[in-house]
Amino acid sequence: MKIDIMTLFPDLITGVMQQSIIGRAQAKGHIEITATNIRDYALDKHHKADDAPYGGGRGMVMLPEPLYLCHEALTQGKHVHTVMMSAQGAPFNQEKARELLAREHFIIVCGHYEGIDQRFIDTCVDEEISIGDFVLTGGEIPAMAVADAVCRMVPGVLPDETAFQEESHWNGLLEYPQYTHPALWRGQTVPEVLLSGHHANIARWRRKMSIRRTMHDRPDLYAQFTPADKQDKKILAELAAEHDL
Amino acid sequence: MKIDIMTLFPDLITGVMQQSIIGRAQAKGHIEITATNIRDYALDKHHKADDAPYGGGRGMVMLPEPLYLCHEALTQGKHVHTVMMSAQGAPFNQEKARELLAREHFIIVCGHYEGIDQRFIDTCVDEEISIGDFVLTGGEIPAMAVADAVCRMVPGVLPDETAFQEESHWNGLLEYPQYTHPALWRGQTVPEVLLSGHHANIARWRRKMSIRRTMHDRPDLYAQFTPADKQDKKILAELAAEHDL
Repeated sequence: MKIDIMTLFPDLITGVMQQSIIGRAQAKGHIEITATNIRDYALDKHHKADDAPYGGGRGMVMLPEPLYLCHEALTQGKHVHTVMMSAQGAPFNQEKARELLAREHFIIVCGHYEGIDQRFIDTCVDEEISIGDFVLTGGEIPAMAVADAVCRMVPGVLPDETAFQEESHWNGLLEYPQYTHPALWRGQTVPEVLLSGHHANIARWRRKMSIRRTMHDRPDLYAQFTPADKQDKKILAELAAEHDL
Repeated sequence: MKIDIMTLFPDLITGVMQQSIIGRAQAKGHIEITATNIRDYALDKHHKADDAPYGGGRGMVMLPEPLYLCHEALTQGKHVHTVMMSAQGAPFNQEKARELLAREHFIIVCGHYEGIDQRFIDTCVDEEISIGDFVLTGGEIPAMAVADAVCRMVPGVLPDETAFQEESHWNGLLEYPQYTHPALWRGQTVPEVLLSGHHANIARWRRKMSIRRTMHDRPDLYAQFTPADKQDKKILAELAAEHDL
């Protein structure tokens, strides 16, 4: 998996992407995340990457030509799927992450300032993606979120093959609560079943907690949940009974 | 505005938050974002911050005690509103950013590994916030998104007082397209109205583009839109007529 990030702040991205699991996966060669400075393709002597918007208004708009030349240098005549982080975009979610995972190479364009010349977007961007309905300074933090979510699913990146399948939202349910040492912490105990050593009971309790949390906290996700087996159906009956109390 | 971020990767956060608009606002003293290493409060000789989960399963869970001691050092006996980045949380959006803005000081807890001991969450966390339905390595990237969105609204941070009010999602509409130099770029022109110098026409065109984009790309946002004046009503009639063609 190769991800190219076009940005005015390459150091910011490189610093973050060298840490933790993603950093180790890059060191091992499983993935390659490269941040390229758009300003390096600004050909005037001041390396100007932005200018005032036509029609007036505050702020600066990123010039189309440096973006185009940067994009051209990365694609080298081939078509490379290009996404742009933007408030206009389709919401980013795990399904979109899987879609991007299926591409061997993609480019993320980070906007900054007031925006990006629309003609560059029309010419080079295949899709716009948003990480939520909030306003950020630039596309860099969202781009790192996308890169992290996608790279976690590349084989070999997570230590355990089954790891990502168990995680939140992968199966459409929220995570069950977790506990670690000590068993008695500032007067608070750990649910007894977790100390029982009875694997089937533990798995059932965790499944129930996941379903209950999803039901209470995320009715929108719960609406898409269908019981996987008889045990799930029994759990749902128990939760309905709790609710009636 | 003071934001404390509890994390296992303080350098990652400090590096990003020293850049761009947020970095300059920190230098000027408008805001203060501090990343504190949870591991500094792990009191055993190995500075252990995590351990295996009770009940088994892969991965590591963050120990409650270092989290508690770190939180205690930051709050110093006062109540400080504490949010945790988590897939379980309420969706982060501009409204939530404004809510956090209204607090003078808040703490963001970043999870990592498989999770955080539930007893720490029950004891110290006031609310869980999610930036979307996707799985990330840790809470650091989401925490930076929250800090950035909140800090942009602190008076003095953006260069222009009216800046943030015009931005996407602030008024519930997507941004209009932007154009800058050159007027003719690789065979593509700029919409004529933007070159006309006629301010009222430009403002009307931009408003229409914002409404049209929202209508097409984000019907969920558009459903909450109500025309502000007669001009908006005329624009809606024009868009309806276009649609009928």
